[in-house]
Amino acid sequence: MAKAQAKALYDFESGGPGELSFNADDILTILRQDVGAGWWEAINNRGETGLVPQSYFDVISYKEPTMPPPLPPANTKPTWGGVATKPNRPITSQHSLHPPQQQQIQQQSQINNAQDDYDDDWDDDDDSSTTTEQEQNSVETNGTRGVRNSDDKGKPSVKVSAFSRFSSFVKSGGEAYLFENQKELSESEKMFAVIETMDGPAWQSLDVPYSCSITSPKKESKFHGIKTFIAYQLTPSFSNIQVSRRYKHFDWLQQRLVVKFSTIPIPPLPEKQISGRFEEDFVTQRLRQLQMWIDRMCQHPVIAKSEVFLHFLTCTDEKKWKIGKRQAEKDDLCGAMFFRAVKVPQFPSLDSKQADMSIEKFGKFVKSLDDSLRHLTAISESNVKKHIGPFKKEFQKLGGSFTALAKSFEYDERPASLGLTKAIEHTGRTYDEIGELFAKQPQNDMLYLLEGLHSYKGLLSTVPDTLMIHKSAQTKIQDQSSKLTSAELQKVQNRADVISYAILADVEHLQRYRVHDFANYMRAYLGGQIEFYKQITQKLEESLKQYPNDT
Amino acid sequence: MAKAQAKALYDFESGGPGELSFNADDILTILRQDVGAGWWEAINNRGETGLVPQSYFDVISYKEPTMPPPLPPANTKPTWGGVATKPNRPITSQHSLHPPQQQQIQQQSQINNAQDDYDDDWDDDDDSSTTTEQEQNSVETNGTRGVRNSDDKGKPSVKVSAFSRFSSFVKSGGEAYLFENQKELSESEKMFAVIETMDGPAWQSLDVPYSCSITSPKKESKFHGIKTFIAYQLTPSFSNIQVSRRYKHFDWLQQRLVVKFSTIPIPPLPEKQISGRFEEDFVTQRLRQLQMWIDRMCQHPVIAKSEVFLHFLTCTDEKKWKIGKRQAEKDDLCGAMFFRAVKVPQFPSLDSKQADMSIEKFGKFVKSLDDSLRHLTAISESNVKKHIGPFKKEFQKLGGSFTALAKSFEYDERPASLGLTKAIEHTGRTYDEIGELFAKQPQNDMLYLLEGLHSYKGLLSTVPDTLMIHKSAQTKIQDQSSKLTSAELQKVQNRADVISYAILADVEHLQRYRVHDFANYMRAYLGGQIEFYKQITQKLEESLKQYPNDT
Repeated sequence: MAKAQAKALYDFESGGPGELSFNADDILTILRQDVGAGWWEAINNRGETGLVPQSYFDVISYKEPTMPPPLPPANTKPTWGGVATKPNRPITSQHSLHPPQQQQIQQQSQINNAQDDYDDDWDDDDDSSTTTEQEQNSVETNGTRGVRNSDDKGKPSVKVSAFSRFSSFVKSGGEAYLFENQKELSESEKMFAVIETMDGPAWQSLDVPYSCSITSPKKESKFHGIKTFIAYQLTPSFSNIQVSRRYKHFDWLQQRLVVKFSTIPIPPLPEKQISGRFEEDFVTQRLRQLQMWIDRMCQHPVIAKSEVFLHFLTCTDEKKWKIGKRQAEKDDLCGAMFFRAVKVPQFPSLDSKQADMSIEKFGKFVKSLDDSLRHLTAISESNVKKHIGPFKKEFQKLGGSFTALAKSFEYDERPASLGLTKAIEHTGRTYDEIGELFAKQPQNDMLYLLEGLHSYKGLLSTVPDTLMIHKSAQTKIQDQSSKLTSAELQKVQNRADVISYAILADVEHLQRYRVHDFANYMRAYLGGQIEFYKQITQKLEESLKQYPNDT
Repeated sequence: MAKAQAKALYDFESGGPGELSFNADDILTILRQDVGAGWWEAINNRGETGLVPQSYFDVISYKEPTMPPPLPPANTKPTWGGVATKPNRPITSQHSLHPPQQQQIQQQSQINNAQDDYDDDWDDDDDSSTTTEQEQNSVETNGTRGVRNSDDKGKPSVKVSAFSRFSSFVKSGGEAYLFENQKELSESEKMFAVIETMDGPAWQSLDVPYSCSITSPKKESKFHGIKTFIAYQLTPSFSNIQVSRRYKHFDWLQQRLVVKFSTIPIPPLPEKQISGRFEEDFVTQRLRQLQMWIDRMCQHPVIAKSEVFLHFLTCTDEKKWKIGKRQAEKDDLCGAMFFRAVKVPQFPSLDSKQADMSIEKFGKFVKSLDDSLRHLTAISESNVKKHIGPFKKEFQKLGGSFTALAKSFEYDERPASLGLTKAIEHTGRTYDEIGELFAKQPQNDMLYLLEGLHSYKGLLSTVPDTLMIHKSAQTKIQDQSSKLTSAELQKVQNRADVISYAILADVEHLQRYRVHDFANYMRAYLGGQIEFYKQITQKLEESLKQYPNDT
């Protein structure tokens, strides 16, 4: 019996070994339909086999791609290369919209496409390696992190995942930090202070908070035009001195921050994309997203005063840049050891129970928020599509039939009739224009809301791991407590408290800015909506005025 | 081989012999698919066979019913009971909407359902017959007019069709009027004058135009409650004396006007309906439609001064009512003979060529307008459905996901967070309410526009026949001209001119009020739309205010 053929309705990107990536419209041959849990085994026309989500396919007929259905539960069969868990995937990456109207949304969804090429490869003015031995070790162990060196240049790379980050914390000396007595850093070396506030522990804010604007993305080239890239101009408010940075520099910075601050959620950068990387819309959007990212970094009192971040924001000299870069890569107050540089309140001492409860509750909050954001994102994207498609069409159809009515009325050429005919013609045009307004509106409100939601989804994806660090420390101490004297235990507990303090401070920071950010997103969205409906009202009022009164 | 089964996607009501009525979701067996022109032969589960429009079916799978596709061209195969032509059917009657939200629209579409029962049967206080011998004759000949007497009481009745009306004109003495020398009526008996105006021939307007308001539809009963009916109170502005009329009285009047004035488009009454005839919404709508109808009658200077109409508006005494009724039914200045009572301008005499061209152009106008109205009606009804269905759903889905976001935010109980949470909750409710507004809006604008369109479709449906009277008179004269002396021919032509004058005056009247009516419809529609978008804007502004500013 011939195997069934199936047509992919949406893009799908493999979430781990055993799964098979494909694009919408690909035809795959289904090898087994009895894999279970919503998965099939399939083979593509390059002979690659793997698991694919059944609901992404249409075996019989072609359907108009809409929102993809929810993914089936992750496959856990050991026969499939031991896929254990699969990272939650943001819904944006699961479907493709169609150009040209939806170009911007498409770019939005490409943000999540980890298969994207580099728009800006590492080139030979860089150091030979961008990873420390420590990280290499971590990479080799968990095997999911793509490292960019000459060997895998151009191959798909996977961003540092939440799991490898936790793993990195462990490898970077989690146990050593808790149980070995290192030399206490001096007060001046303890650069990062947690203080008690009305809202609980919080990072001490900067004496002079600052911001950094990113402007003028410029297409530049090297090697007589063979290599082109975008250079962004960054101007920190404290110096007002412009520095030029490329995407690869942001990328390097992001990785350093992840390595150094294991409990601070560092959101991923906006993703690279394969083609059209110099199209104006894309560059503008990338700029906006990088600005969002850098804003978030500047807002964080720990990051904002860290050497590596300041080096990124201020260094204008190429030689000094390389020196600072190497220095940052050799920083030994990274990962677990970062906590040595954290100063915490002595009085009152941490209420560990309370802290555990707060952290646990925050975990639930993040889970719930993650779900809400996914839901809101899906609905918002569908809403964008409705505006571009059916809403536009509906109003234009109405406009068209008013226009046809006016056309019929043209048979009556008496002067007394002309005023009405022209007015109805105007109404026809008005509804046509209202249709256009509907199609364009998402660019004025919903797409910004979506960018905000997307940036929060990136941020939240890194949170569960920071919470795992807390939990893991608590477990380790329980395991070891019987072997320790009470004096030793107290010391260990104090160090664990530093981790809790850091996490609580990060929770406080995230919640504060979350309120700030979402209030801004919502205000901007509602503002755009109000403007939109006012515009429609005005257009209709204008059309109403066309009707002769004396009839 | 088994015959194919097909599922009906929409309601379809047989438009003539040979066609088979069915409802959406009915399963029919297709007997022949090679009938051609978009028609199939089918059999239903009651064993009835007939032609059905192919595009109304889905043979393989069930589709969500949307707007039905255009009907295939009318079947003209002689094998099918000699179906020659099929009256254009208003699109309203071709599809069914679903209760309960769409009740009003449903009532709207029931207007076209000629199979409706009487909500108000003729009862024994009526005369035994409501038709004159002359009409009976006409009915027997063309066989399409249902006459309400004791024999066919309760059977489906077909309203006087345009064709039978023309036929009625011919039977009522079209040739006699043209070719026989009747005694000229006195000046005072020539009640209806056509005058020359800037816009061409027009009916002389009333010295004192008047209106008539219909109010207080009351449920009344007879025979100790066995028979119930609605009594409408009519108050003409010239007398201010209220008279009580039932639907059957309107129906009688409408028929008398059709018989008497063969060139004046008399729109059909709003149709009766089978069930729920005392539901408040329906009664209100019926009242509004009757008011529209009576307004149109009062506006027409010929009808407004006719005895039969004035009798209807003023008679309060039951005995006098019956006498007036009988007198109207015996009126011999009906149909073709009505023209004897029409006074036309002597100087300048009618430019026959010009008149023919004007009338021909008007025919084209009516054809074009009829198409536009059908199109606009279909689009408007679909627009209503969009508002009630997908639009409402879309906004409520968005509201729901904002509400879910607020729910997640409730995990953060810090006072600094609560303001935002409550604001987003408010936005969630706001979009939910906006969804409701969308669903309710058609009742505030589109349904009134639809009523207007519907009433014009009724009016226009009677026009082609009045034009046929003109054409037929011209043809007759040409046929006979060789047999007539030039003096005789001049007399005949003068009489034909009276018909042309009457038609031109009716064209003028229709065009004048068409401009008036459509300006009103459009103003009301746009006004409703403006109010609607203002309401949305206000709701969004209210929600925007909820967002704390100090974040």
